[in-house]
Amino acid sequence: MDRLTALIQDKHNPTVVGLDPQPELLPSQLIEQARQRAAGSMDQMGLDPKDPQQNQGEQAQAVWADHLARAYLRFNLAILEGVADLVPAVKPQIAMYEALGPWGIRAYTGTCRAAADRGLYVIGDVKRGDIGSTAEAYAAHLDGLPLPFAPGQAVDGSARTGGRFPWYEDALTINVYLGSDGVEPFLQAAEHIQGDLFALVRTSNPSGSQIQELGLDADSGGGTIYQRLGELVESWGQSSMGQSGYSRLGAVVGATHPEDGALLRRAMPHTFFLVPGYGAQGGSATDVAPMFDRSGGGAVVNSSRGIIAAWRKDPDYSPQLSVQAALGMVTRDARQAAQAMKDDLNQAIKEAR
Amino acid sequence: MDRLTALIQDKHNPTVVGLDPQPELLPSQLIEQARQRAAGSMDQMGLDPKDPQQNQGEQAQAVWADHLARAYLRFNLAILEGVADLVPAVKPQIAMYEALGPWGIRAYTGTCRAAADRGLYVIGDVKRGDIGSTAEAYAAHLDGLPLPFAPGQAVDGSARTGGRFPWYEDALTINVYLGSDGVEPFLQAAEHIQGDLFALVRTSNPSGSQIQELGLDADSGGGTIYQRLGELVESWGQSSMGQSGYSRLGAVVGATHPEDGALLRRAMPHTFFLVPGYGAQGGSATDVAPMFDRSGGGAVVNSSRGIIAAWRKDPDYSPQLSVQAALGMVTRDARQAAQAMKDDLNQAIKEAR
Repeated sequence: MDRLTALIQDKHNPTVVGLDPQPELLPSQLIEQARQRAAGSMDQMGLDPKDPQQNQGEQAQAVWADHLARAYLRFNLAILEGVADLVPAVKPQIAMYEALGPWGIRAYTGTCRAAADRGLYVIGDVKRGDIGSTAEAYAAHLDGLPLPFAPGQAVDGSARTGGRFPWYEDALTINVYLGSDGVEPFLQAAEHIQGDLFALVRTSNPSGSQIQELGLDADSGGGTIYQRLGELVESWGQSSMGQSGYSRLGAVVGATHPEDGALLRRAMPHTFFLVPGYGAQGGSATDVAPMFDRSGGGAVVNSSRGIIAAWRKDPDYSPQLSVQAALGMVTRDARQAAQAMKDDLNQAIKEAR
Repeated sequence: MDRLTALIQDKHNPTVVGLDPQPELLPSQLIEQARQRAAGSMDQMGLDPKDPQQNQGEQAQAVWADHLARAYLRFNLAILEGVADLVPAVKPQIAMYEALGPWGIRAYTGTCRAAADRGLYVIGDVKRGDIGSTAEAYAAHLDGLPLPFAPGQAVDGSARTGGRFPWYEDALTINVYLGSDGVEPFLQAAEHIQGDLFALVRTSNPSGSQIQELGLDADSGGGTIYQRLGELVESWGQSSMGQSGYSRLGAVVGATHPEDGALLRRAMPHTFFLVPGYGAQGGSATDVAPMFDRSGGGAVVNSSRGIIAAWRKDPDYSPQLSVQAALGMVTRDARQAAQAMKDDLNQAIKEAR
């Protein structure tokens, strides 16, 4: 977590912006523009966008998905313009893009690349988790395509390109219910590119307790499931300790459980925390303060809707604005919201020390 | 699970074929053909495929990934040709495709579509798991793109297309560490398309025990974590019971733990089992027999490498064969392996009753 830690210190800001586009979070102008462009493409393909049957056929859906995905990317670029110099990191949630099929995945990689080009640390919120060759395949998110050519040669068996293309992620969230078999391939890939991982330990949603809060018996060491997962994560990370004092294997710890967070912070001194649930999900800066270490480091707090959809609370917004004016508002309001969050977090961290 | 159950009965075969391509599982002719086609594309783009720097640049990687993904699809079509009338279901593992970026995802959806066109039940092995709007976004795998037009109308807010395009999956594997919040959106989507889900309960890998076998205390009801997860899955499925006696929420139960499987089978009478780990991972037909119910139903067993890479054990294979001849061998050997597995499973199920 050395690079993330350095970026947080440089910008004096432990915020990560969740780039999680959905149709209703985009100004309607952008959607309308996508619709017009899709209609134009359909026209070129000999499809009639006014014919309901053709407008909902598979060819039209593909055109639509493509143009909506492009609108997602454009929206994200407006957010990045507003926050890139203020925040250290972004966290695109791949589900939002995956919902648009292969076209969405292209917008996802385009978003990661645009963020990386601006010097941001990119956390791919993919929550992948599997074992063996499957986990190795997912780890290509970090260490490149498994293309069957070796550097400088023609085809000669399977080797990773080792490049950042096409995913451009610095870190991934992972699910570790399958144990260390599912962590090792990801850790190797992270080592390879000097990247990181964040394992789901304690989630911010209400029903997370159904499993995570179950108590273990004495033979299994007592405590709760999430505590044990925390201990395992802390131990699995030992071999990848960085100069910052944190390993490459971080943990996702939801903002809605401040007491649990404080407990985990003590039990996991070498594990960096990624904290979702601030803002829209109900967590306050005071709630997340216990997730930081004594020097105010060791954690990064995510906000998505509070920043990317800040434009929706702008009294000056109107559907009549031009696309350019609406995107300008997205940029300004995202910047303002990110600045307010930075101040809010830094104040709470200061008070907690 | 009514459709899956009917297909299993029709074909008298509880096998699912894992369509998990990797470069080393494809005949070298196919890789070489992809290389030549990639070189042709590079040439058209003004890139020199013999220049190592250009051959490893991002443009070339994109071309390579595209052609390798097309080879994956072609390989899968050869497998499908061999097994489509023999088996009820296929299970493409999305990680293998995701490793090739957006191009791989296109091969994945193409594979699902080709299988669906042949009447096969398609289990997307995606192991997705998240909450709220994120889980809803992932559920688009089942119930269609979130496109901002309603049927027969122009843009008017976010609505699902409700179609099978572009994913063509009948079921998904999911990870439920986040509790029922993470299951509900998937179950709704499954209901919508008369599809199903399989929750990870007991995995076949060695380190699965690190978490799954931990014992719970008396306050938490005793038993192990995987048993509790099994109980939760059984209860979450209650509202979606089918005519087959099984709910839409199945469970993944690894073949390498036959005793645990027998235990779970009794504790989860309405939960259909997807059983990985047969063959390459060490599980035998005798190991998986306890996962079936008394009438020999209620479970489907996955084999990937044993079927899709059966050609590698064919003494007649030679790298000198034409692409067409090699693919014909892939088809024949996959069919033979699928037939042998069918007989093996049916024999073991018969003996266990």
